[in-house]
Amino acid sequence: MIKASVIGATGYAGQELVRLLMRHPEVELLSLGSRSYQGQAYSDVYNNFRDLSDLVCQAGDIEILADQSDVIFLAMPHGIASKMVTQAVLEKAVVIDLGADYRLHDIDVYSEWYQTEHGSVDLLSQAVYGLCELHREQIKTARLIANPGCYTTCSILSLAPLIHEGLIDENSIIIDAKSGVSGAGRSTSQDLLFGEVNESIKAYKIGDHRHTPEIEQELRALNQKNFNVLFTPHLVPMNRGILAVSYATLKPAITEAQIKEAYEKMYQDEYFIRLTGDKMPETRWARGTNFVDIGFKLNKRTNRVVVVGAIDNLIKGAAGQAIQNMNIVFGCEEKIGIDLIADFPI
Amino acid sequence: MIKASVIGATGYAGQELVRLLMRHPEVELLSLGSRSYQGQAYSDVYNNFRDLSDLVCQAGDIEILADQSDVIFLAMPHGIASKMVTQAVLEKAVVIDLGADYRLHDIDVYSEWYQTEHGSVDLLSQAVYGLCELHREQIKTARLIANPGCYTTCSILSLAPLIHEGLIDENSIIIDAKSGVSGAGRSTSQDLLFGEVNESIKAYKIGDHRHTPEIEQELRALNQKNFNVLFTPHLVPMNRGILAVSYATLKPAITEAQIKEAYEKMYQDEYFIRLTGDKMPETRWARGTNFVDIGFKLNKRTNRVVVVGAIDNLIKGAAGQAIQNMNIVFGCEEKIGIDLIADFPI
Amino acid sequence: MIKASVIGATGYAGQELVRLLMRHPEVELLSLGSRSYQGQAYSDVYNNFRDLSDLVCQAGDIEILADQSDVIFLAMPHGIASKMVTQAVLEKAVVIDLGADYRLHDIDVYSEWYQTEHGSVDLLSQAVYGLCELHREQIKTARLIANPGCYTTCSILSLAPLIHEGLIDENSIIIDAKSGVSGAGRSTSQDLLFGEVNESIKAYKIGDHRHTPEIEQELRALNQKNFNVLFTPHLVPMNRGILAVSYATLKPAITEAQIKEAYEKMYQDEYFIRLTGDKMPETRWARGTNFVDIGFKLNKRTNRVVVVGAIDNLIKGAAGQAIQNMNIVFGCEEKIGIDLIADFPI
Amino acid sequence: MIKASVIGATGYAGQELVRLLMRHPEVELLSLGSRSYQGQAYSDVYNNFRDLSDLVCQAGDIEILADQSDVIFLAMPHGIASKMVTQAVLEKAVVIDLGADYRLHDIDVYSEWYQTEHGSVDLLSQAVYGLCELHREQIKTARLIANPGCYTTCSILSLAPLIHEGLIDENSIIIDAKSGVSGAGRSTSQDLLFGEVNESIKAYKIGDHRHTPEIEQELRALNQKNFNVLFTPHLVPMNRGILAVSYATLKPAITEAQIKEAYEKMYQDEYFIRLTGDKMPETRWARGTNFVDIGFKLNKRTNRVVVVGAIDNLIKGAAGQAIQNMNIVFGCEEKIGIDLIADFPI
Repeated sequence: MIKASVIGATGYAGQELVRLLMRHPEVELLSLGSRSYQGQAYSDVYNNFRDLSDLVCQAGDIEILADQSDVIFLAMPHGIASKMVTQAVLEKAVVIDLGADYRLHDIDVYSEWYQTEHGSVDLLSQAVYGLCELHREQIKTARLIANPGCYTTCSILSLAPLIHEGLIDENSIIIDAKSGVSGAGRSTSQDLLFGEVNESIKAYKIGDHRHTPEIEQELRALNQKNFNVLFTPHLVPMNRGILAVSYATLKPAITEAQIKEAYEKMYQDEYFIRLTGDKMPETRWARGTNFVDIGFKLNKRTNRVVVVGAIDNLIKGAAGQAIQNMNIVFGCEEKIGIDLIADFPI
Repeated sequence: MIKASVIGATGYAGQELVRLLMRHPEVELLSLGSRSYQGQAYSDVYNNFRDLSDLVCQAGDIEILADQSDVIFLAMPHGIASKMVTQAVLEKAVVIDLGADYRLHDIDVYSEWYQTEHGSVDLLSQAVYGLCELHREQIKTARLIANPGCYTTCSILSLAPLIHEGLIDENSIIIDAKSGVSGAGRSTSQDLLFGEVNESIKAYKIGDHRHTPEIEQELRALNQKNFNVLFTPHLVPMNRGILAVSYATLKPAITEAQIKEAYEKMYQDEYFIRLTGDKMPETRWARGTNFVDIGFKLNKRTNRVVVVGAIDNLIKGAAGQAIQNMNIVFGCEEKIGIDLIADFPI
Repeated sequence: MIKASVIGATGYAGQELVRLLMRHPEVELLSLGSRSYQGQAYSDVYNNFRDLSDLVCQAGDIEILADQSDVIFLAMPHGIASKMVTQAVLEKAVVIDLGADYRLHDIDVYSEWYQTEHGSVDLLSQAVYGLCELHREQIKTARLIANPGCYTTCSILSLAPLIHEGLIDENSIIIDAKSGVSGAGRSTSQDLLFGEVNESIKAYKIGDHRHTPEIEQELRALNQKNFNVLFTPHLVPMNRGILAVSYATLKPAITEAQIKEAYEKMYQDEYFIRLTGDKMPETRWARGTNFVDIGFKLNKRTNRVVVVGAIDNLIKGAAGQAIQNMNIVFGCEEKIGIDLIADFPI
Repeated sequence: MIKASVIGATGYAGQELVRLLMRHPEVELLSLGSRSYQGQAYSDVYNNFRDLSDLVCQAGDIEILADQSDVIFLAMPHGIASKMVTQAVLEKAVVIDLGADYRLHDIDVYSEWYQTEHGSVDLLSQAVYGLCELHREQIKTARLIANPGCYTTCSILSLAPLIHEGLIDENSIIIDAKSGVSGAGRSTSQDLLFGEVNESIKAYKIGDHRHTPEIEQELRALNQKNFNVLFTPHLVPMNRGILAVSYATLKPAITEAQIKEAYEKMYQDEYFIRLTGDKMPETRWARGTNFVDIGFKLNKRTNRVVVVGAIDNLIKGAAGQAIQNMNIVFGCEEKIGIDLIADFPI
């Protein structure tokens, strides 16, 4: 049994992690850390765990947990994890960070976009970007895994084959992404009240969202070129789900068959990627699962390809992928504990 | 492995059954019957099954399926199942009917409320009302199980201890229940369009809903008295969940402690019933699970008790309870395949 | 032109008041008071007023406003208004209080339910309970109007004819009410986040809600008897609307025709009350309007009547009725400025 | 008083038209045509009109209505209006068609995109495209007005200044638009059921939507160039509202100030266009109104401009603009009857 602890267990992503770990057949859930709810029964914070767990929220001291745990999941706002993790911790436990602190390889890019000091720059070179389908081999031996962001997971996987095979003009990429509200977390802000969010849609942080450099880092790595993407997120009145619609101009004479082949080649053996063919993805079919549904459509009138990707932001976009990473590191079957089918209607 | 087939697999309840059976470790899913979608891939009807199932919708001939299956689930509108099931079928396979045809013991009550002819009155005496927590012993040896309705499951279990222990005036019972829209099924009706349902609430079939006699039959059986209940259902703009709020006048001098004891006595060993104490149930904590959450509150100013019950209408109110029944009949652990935790936010 | 000011203009009810007053042909909107947003442009607080109003939030000093205004609307949490209003203010301006401070005639009842000190007990005897359809004559000459609560407006008007005509057993009254989320205001609380409210329903403050004594006061006044009601509110995942479903046992031999006649007799000349006959009210048809839609159904099996009332909680349940009160006091046509038709889909 | 009739009064757009016309101070609403509901009271089809209208749905014979009416609104699926309208009708009444039949000047483009025969090609040359802000002068004397589509209104007005002033590369235009469900009308289709739409988002008709040629026609007219746009619509789980996010590459050396000036120059006197400056539009602030809210943001990293437009699809995108057109034709103040403020929360 893999002994697992979670620090930051009372945010939405942390909670989803707890739920999935509790039903994972190879995991023993040791400890839940939450500064805000320290001392409270976890099932009082989230009543879905009533009668199912008697865990109590702890301080979440990473040094102590490292002694007891095989793996520690961190699910906290950026800037905190990097002040917690140390080489000593990594020698005792694998750390999977659901936050942003170890995702960007270039500390200057981190500083520019996050406007905060990084607490352990020296560990950056050890960190592996935990996008399982792209970095599986490195993940196998990693001690520090930077679990990707929700928008980024969906965006990168949607575009990777096109870039890898050189089918599009990289400078033409526009990603118009739409997310359910849970992506914003459980923080108590007026903007997230039901009455403010319900029955409305808005774009936010147009071109400025912090997932932009993460997408660029990973896409650039696929063809070793330097280019920028324009990324626009939206808030949609639903709890979960991300739909990322990506636009790019095709290189001359690229055919639909070539595009189809690029996707099949890269993803044919990937259990968690489903190519949807003629039917475009909708978030409902991926919700509650670790799947990434991907479809594309050519637009001959403008010589562009439109790629549609759909995920559950809290599962493949956070907790599910974190467990997928854990499964890879610990040599479990990759889909164990996260082989979920969307319940419907959601 | 239990060989299972589903007839009526493309309604919402049927679909939920398929999803749960596919992940049940003791079940082999043989055949999916659907007249409307015969010949179509199931994963084309419900895209959540993409890449996960290659089953194709069949005609659903019960005679043929009985030869191959250990258990046949029927998930069809009332009036159809009773014309399908025969003694010969029951000798070969256990039948669990999610519809209404075998729920009412008294054929006259059925005729009055359903206004249709029953196709197999002779089988009624064999049918066991599959409310697991109340009829477990009979279910163990049943060949024909009438899986309870969604409102009824929630209402009966909410009130059973009060009646069993004689704490309330039976004639005072009022049940005001609220349901998500999936309870109405996937039928294409103007009343169920998003624009008609969203952002509004309504009561319907006040005092006339067909779950009324089912509730009365089961509650009356608990104290052998004859009484009527007033049942009012509502449609709430959400996909899933039932909240049943029941009102009853207390018999003289009944205390809160006695009520608490009545619930604990009846339900203390029931895994799927969670008594919520001071916190009243909310549908979100039961959604996506087979749990029934029950809380109560005394109102001294009016000498009444108010009981609040919450379930997921498609799971404990349909597919989950059907599998719970199957588990009981086939001697599996009762919670296997349905030991689900609500994902949150839903 | 009636010169009007609003103190507490940045809550949901205050905002609705501002919107309606801005389009009222007989009103000049003078000043908007808001402690939280003092100094900010109102259209920055609520962007629906962009380019439509250049009013800036003021401190909201009632003494100063009384000198300038014919009418002052107060839309604040309970306990504040009663510390603001004075005899001097009332001599200069009519005050319409949307809060609870002047609704209960009996100061002991106020103290018991609100657990706070009342700031101006001496003014209570002047206050008129502004339920227009019941107290129109008194309202005409009032200087201090206690605008009713949302649940109460719907509940009282639903039941008044039955009590007035002596058709029901008063002690049997149960009111099961359901409200959209805007009733909870714009306060930043975790419980009101989109992710917490969406796709779930809950009952709250069962039997304890502060609208209970208000309902009792007004219903008791109709037959001069002393009785208690059991009132249960619910939170429904929608922005607006209240559906109040009331249950009561009929006195012996009461007929449907008598009930119908009681409603018609009391409400036949009331523009804002619509009797819905065979079709039960749904909140969508009343939403965005000042109408109260009322229907009823007899249940012979239990000898009860079920009354269904629907309103928009922010209009007839708050801002609209406040303007209706203003119209009555100032001798305008009663429906002017609030003669709205529900837009659909909402 | 303008005598007005509506044919196709029972769709969502038709119903919104009826609601607005009933409160328009210069209009007398004569007749409502609806083939589906002929003979039924309009208030039975839409209960929001209970007690407010005694109009009964008629056959809707345009010849007869033309004799009685000053203006006839048509709100029907494409292909029907063009078979109804004749020169004789236009000589008697102004026709405002909310459908697509008269929007495209080029009959070949119509045939290609709509795949149906046009019933009155000879009238096309008289038809004026009723986008009020762009074609006000022509509208003043028009007898046949093609009221623009919902997506098109929002898209064209969002982009017009950029094209008119030559600030962007026309071939780079991508429009990613999101719509509430009411845009799909009241037709009874499985895809529009609450359970299918709620809590999910999808793109549809990517690059193929019929509003594409309409957008192209109007944008091309602004600079007399030939170019194609890529238009992707989405279905969002909300009743109303369109958010159109448009992307375009800036011509060399274009500054933010130039863009701002372009918008102000074109729209400074337009009452129904609100430039939102630093705050990007959200559908909630425009919902229930005839406003178009427009904001933009430069993205220097990719040298693009992102324009965000928001409207209510049933008002500025249908019924409201139709009345705006009527007001222009009949010399009323342009905003009369449609000078609405968004109610909030919606």
